[in-house]
Parts: sequence; C-alpha cells; structure tokens
Amino acid sequence: MIATADIQFVPIGSGVSVRKEISRVIEMINARDFIVQSHAMGTNIEGELHEILAVVAQIHEALHREGTVRVLSNLKLETRTDKIPTLAGKKL
Amino acid sequence: MIATADIQFVPIGSGVSVRKEISRVIEMINARDFIVQSHAMGTNIEGELHEILAVVAQIHEALHREGTVRVLSNLKLETRTDKIPTLAGKKL
Amino acid sequence: MIATADIQFVPIGSGVSVRKEISRVIEMINARDFIVQSHAMGTNIEGELHEILAVVAQIHEALHREGTVRVLSNLKLETRTDKIPTLAGKKL
Amino acid sequence: MIATADIQFVPIGSGVSVRKEISRVIEMINARDFIVQSHAMGTNIEGELHEILAVVAQIHEALHREGTVRVLSNLKLETRTDKIPTLAGKKL
Repeated sequence: MIATADIQFVPIGSGVSVRKEISRVIEMINARDFIVQSHAMGTNIEGELHEILAVVAQIHEALHREGTVRVLSNLKLETRTDKIPTLAGKKL
Repeated sequence: MIATADIQFVPIGSGVSVRKEISRVIEMINARDFIVQSHAMGTNIEGELHEILAVVAQIHEALHREGTVRVLSNLKLETRTDKIPTLAGKKL
Repeated sequence: MIATADIQFVPIGSGVSVRKEISRVIEMINARDFIVQSHAMGTNIEGELHEILAVVAQIHEALHREGTVRVLSNLKLETRTDKIPTLAGKKL
Repeated sequence: MIATADIQFVPIGSGVSVRKEISRVIEMINARDFIVQSHAMGTNIEGELHEILAVVAQIHEALHREGTVRVLSNLKLETRTDKIPTLAGKKL
C-alpha cells in the first residue's frame, strides 16, 4: 500500500545545532526507493507504507549508534483507497 | 529497542463522528503486548519500536478494509540510550 | 519574536476531498505578511509568532463559518534566541 | 470558541533531560482557566481557542527568557460547531 508521509526527526542532547544529524536522516531516506521532497520543517515521502515505517526505525537506531542519546520523531502518514496517493497530487 | 509513542488516527470521509473507527484503533493496539494509556487526543504506547510501527501499518490496512476511504495518522516516537524509556517515567 | 512554523489543517465531515478548504487555508495565510512555502503535507511559514497564532485562530473560525463542522489543525512552531530563525536557513 | 488541544514542548540545547523546562510549561498552562489533563507525551487542554494560542506564545517567550536557546512546540487543535468539544467527551 502506497502512502504519503511527512517525517521530522529531533535529536535531543546534541546541542542547539542538529544539522549533522538531519543530514544523516535525509541520507538514509534518499538511499531508499522513495519519491522524496525535503522542506524546511521536515521531509515528505511517497512510497510503500512498510518501507516508510522501516526507514523510521532504521533512523532511530542509526542516530543512537552514531551517538545521539535521545531521538524524537514526528511522523504524519496518509493512505487512501479511492486513488493512489502522490505528493504531486497533493499540490494545489 | 523500546520506544514510547503517541498515536492519533484520523479517518477522513467517514462523517463528523469517527468514534467507531477510533474504537477499532484502540482494540488493535490493545491486542498487542504494549503498555497503553489512552488520552483524549490520542493513545500513548510503550513497547518495541518495530511492534509499534507494525501496529500503525496494521491499523491503516484494517481501517481501509473495513470501509474508510482515507486514513491519516500522526505518530510521535521517542527512543533513548541513557535509560529505558517508559510512559511512567515521563510523568512529572 | 520571529518563528518558523509548519501548519496543516484537516477538515472533518466534508467528505474525502478537502481541496476547497485547503485552498481557503492557503489564501488566508498568503493574505498576511509572512514568508510562505507550501508543501505537499502542509504549509511552512516564517513570521511573527503572534501573527502565526492569529492566523491559526482565524482559519478555524473561517472554515466553520463557511460550513466545515469539525476542524483539526497540526502546528509545529520553532523559535530560537541564538539567531533569527528562517525557512531559508533550515534548508540543508 | 472552545477548542480541545494537545500541546508538547521540546527544548533543544538544554541537554538530554528537559524535566525542569516541562515543569515550567505545565505551570504556565495550569495558571490559566483551562481544563488540563497532562499525559506522558504532552498536555491536553480544553479552553478558549484564543487563550490556548496565547499560552503557547507565552511559553515560547518564557522558556527563552529563562535560558532555553531553541524551543519547538507541537500543537494539535480541534474545534467543532455541532457540539461543544470537551476532553471528557472524547474519552471512549
């Protein structure tokens, strides 16, 4: 099932700048077979629901392994059965 | 890896009342091996990160199968490596 | 105080398509003195914190006045004191 | 217009523990004329929409004044015209 998603990761305890961690997040998202649109407050993804959830788990685990003590994520997901959801189709 | 989570599901196109769908969401969450605390605006979960993500996918799929055309979910996740995160430990 | 924000409105009970309501939301945001970047899952805003909160209230009230029975909004806000936050500065 | 809300504040750059800042957040919410239900992942509020938005601005400003460099907030709001929304009425 295809989903559209908006993902935001917030590393806590890494100081005020979290630019390095966010670059890693986007790198891991881009490594998968998604349509990706980064924006100033998060990253939009179009892809298989299970793949999107898999990358969320992978990012939590990777950020911890690389030293971040506390990781918050905010995830918005959308699925629908009347048509295939796309990021492009959600643009007004 | 244990995570704490706050999950909210929003069925779209089912009319103004979504009580029936939300009951199903909580039923599916309760069927798993989680610590669960429902609140007025969502459901808090403490459990394995992969299990939490699995129930999110399951709920999207089940609501569609049972007739909801469009399903939004909002998911907040938190993991940490300095201690085991618990819902109880987050109470002030 | 300048803030960056990500706003998403979800009209409930208006049917599966909410395109008309979302157009109104963006119209009301654009009518103010903000830097605005719409994306597939919401709208990013850079502007005065109080103005951003004012437009959120205005949109809830306007959508109801125009017939939407139930209105959900998701708002992410960010402020900081070490520099002026900008949407442009958050791009990697 | 009465709204129900779920508010979460995330101080960034204050270290891994944010307990002190979250106590202040709840103190400021409790000082107002709201119905308040704190939960493990945030605080639910029932009250006037404009008052809820006012306390959000107040908290951002107060946390900065008291030393937090970067403040994120996540706010979910709900309003409806078919009945007065209450936290109690949203319990299943």
